[in-house]
Amino acid sequence: MYKVKVYVTLRESVLDPQGTAVKKSLKTMGYGAVEDVRIGKYMELSLEKTDRDVHETVKEMCERLLSNPVIEDYRYEIEECVAQ
Amino acid sequence: MYKVKVYVTLRESVLDPQGTAVKKSLKTMGYGAVEDVRIGKYMELSLEKTDRDVHETVKEMCERLLSNPVIEDYRYEIEECVAQ
Repeated sequence: MYKVKVYVTLRESVLDPQGTAVKKSLKTMGYGAVEDVRIGKYMELSLEKTDRDVHETVKEMCERLLSNPVIEDYRYEIEECVAQ
Repeated sequence: MYKVKVYVTLRESVLDPQGTAVKKSLKTMGYGAVEDVRIGKYMELSLEKTDRDVHETVKEMCERLLSNPVIEDYRYEIEECVAQ
């Protein structure tokens, strides 16, 4: 069993209106120290072991469904779990 | 300057319909190894240094705006950056 953590973020060059809204809210709430906010997605997947290389599978899932490679970057971490 | 990474996830006991939808899509696409998907938020904040403790500030921001403590958990990482 693998536990996979996937982080999807907007590319630097892409505007992040959600992040801008959160930044404005934080400033309004009195957090003047906030300089920038960028918002992304965080996903946790549990995968069963298969014959296929897990890195290859995860990369393909990220590119086909979990992220939009045109405007987003992704990175992932894979942990192997021992069955309990 | 601090770079803060905030991870917000739904509590274990809370249903995640978005995660279920992604799991179903992945299965339909041929990734039968997928057992579970949980979807959360990932935020990157840049904060200026202030007199206040940065951990205290970030914790308060998470509790007041960035997460909904009733249904979500959060964790964060703080990195101190040297001005370039």
